[in-house]
Amino acid sequence: MKVVGILGGMGPAAGADFVRLFVEACARRMRAQGEPVRDQGFPEHWLAQVPVPDRSGAIGSATPGAHQPLEPMLQALGRLAALGSRAVAMACNTAHAWHGALQERFPQIELLHVAREVSAHLASQDVREAALMATDGTYRAGFYERAMAESGLACHLPSEVERTLLMRGIYDGVKAGNLQLAEDCFSRVALSLAERHGDVALVMGCTEIPLGLQGAPAVSGLRLVDPARVLAEALANRAYEGTSRQRSA
Amino acid sequence: MKVVGILGGMGPAAGADFVRLFVEACARRMRAQGEPVRDQGFPEHWLAQVPVPDRSGAIGSATPGAHQPLEPMLQALGRLAALGSRAVAMACNTAHAWHGALQERFPQIELLHVAREVSAHLASQDVREAALMATDGTYRAGFYERAMAESGLACHLPSEVERTLLMRGIYDGVKAGNLQLAEDCFSRVALSLAERHGDVALVMGCTEIPLGLQGAPAVSGLRLVDPARVLAEALANRAYEGTSRQRSA
Repeated sequence: MKVVGILGGMGPAAGADFVRLFVEACARRMRAQGEPVRDQGFPEHWLAQVPVPDRSGAIGSATPGAHQPLEPMLQALGRLAALGSRAVAMACNTAHAWHGALQERFPQIELLHVAREVSAHLASQDVREAALMATDGTYRAGFYERAMAESGLACHLPSEVERTLLMRGIYDGVKAGNLQLAEDCFSRVALSLAERHGDVALVMGCTEIPLGLQGAPAVSGLRLVDPARVLAEALANRAYEGTSRQRSA
Repeated sequence: MKVVGILGGMGPAAGADFVRLFVEACARRMRAQGEPVRDQGFPEHWLAQVPVPDRSGAIGSATPGAHQPLEPMLQALGRLAALGSRAVAMACNTAHAWHGALQERFPQIELLHVAREVSAHLASQDVREAALMATDGTYRAGFYERAMAESGLACHLPSEVERTLLMRGIYDGVKAGNLQLAEDCFSRVALSLAERHGDVALVMGCTEIPLGLQGAPAVSGLRLVDPARVLAEALANRAYEGTSRQRSA
């Protein structure tokens, strides 16, 4: 088994939830292989929850300075590498706007890419169309659209009004601890995307969205995809397999 | 804010849940102080989930060797210290049998003690009697009974048959992923303790017990106390206050 790392703190509730998903993915793997699930069967893993400036805000700003998230992310990633991590997942979708810069600085580790993992996962299930619920920063960075296009998926985007609702649910809802507001905002957007595009996969492309939307009765019939779950599964695969170090440029 | 650490992996699901409880405790603290809850308001914290041999099994064995948990715990604690942690909580009750040896090796950090935190918490709420649900190892080590006595609390213990039920719920239930079995075992013990001792505080003194018992309808009227919640709150206090470094001998 290989040591793996999780770069969190963006936000911290999502980081904690990512560890839960990773532990579940490891347990599923043990069960699938007919092994007993016991404490000592889990790979060593480290979670770094460090204060990182707001990612969406920084994507709109070209000036260097303390509001930029790259430096604290680099430092935390370097420490995860020093702890022996061979693969690292970031528990924040928007942070993947800096994926290239981070991966380049630490070529000795594999930094998983959430949008590539999700796109590959959807393509493997013969999904052809998806709608993306995400932060302003993620839309501005465009990495989900690129990864989906590379996997042959059409990617539908919400309107400006819907994007404002999503940001409200993320910041005034989940991050501020108002889950009812979050559920209202997210479910309105999910329902109108489903109405507009039909039975497409609805990618909850911000780690805060599942925390506010999962289990909401209003969206029970929709095809919600949780990228954190897909990414946690991918990280568990790296920890157990070790050999599948495919890194795309 | 001070950097704090969490020593987990014992089991990993409990470690993940401890981070969730810690993040919630930090958010509560921000709200209580009238501050907005935002990602950057959380203290830096690290979770180490390392494979550690079974604690209960080792307490019964005096021989040194690879089945002893002290060495991997020391190594993980040393790395949490190297990451800058000023206070560390262990997300495993039984592991506190080694608290003294761990604290002695790393005097520069405060290693919180779950039983002392829980006893102080109960005493502050004018609780006088508690019943302890825990692992064989925790009963054998006796640190909960000692901490409660120091805080002036009476500590009731389950019978041999009830202890066997608890171990079954912990190992064949939560650790193996069979939550229904866990709920059955734990609720039977909780109900008979309540029948025997009346309205005492029922301390769920193994991190796996709340994972199987919380929300169970059978025990909805009982006074369940989750040490992980108390410990997470104490760790959040250390992270924010920094000055309250009281270490008992």
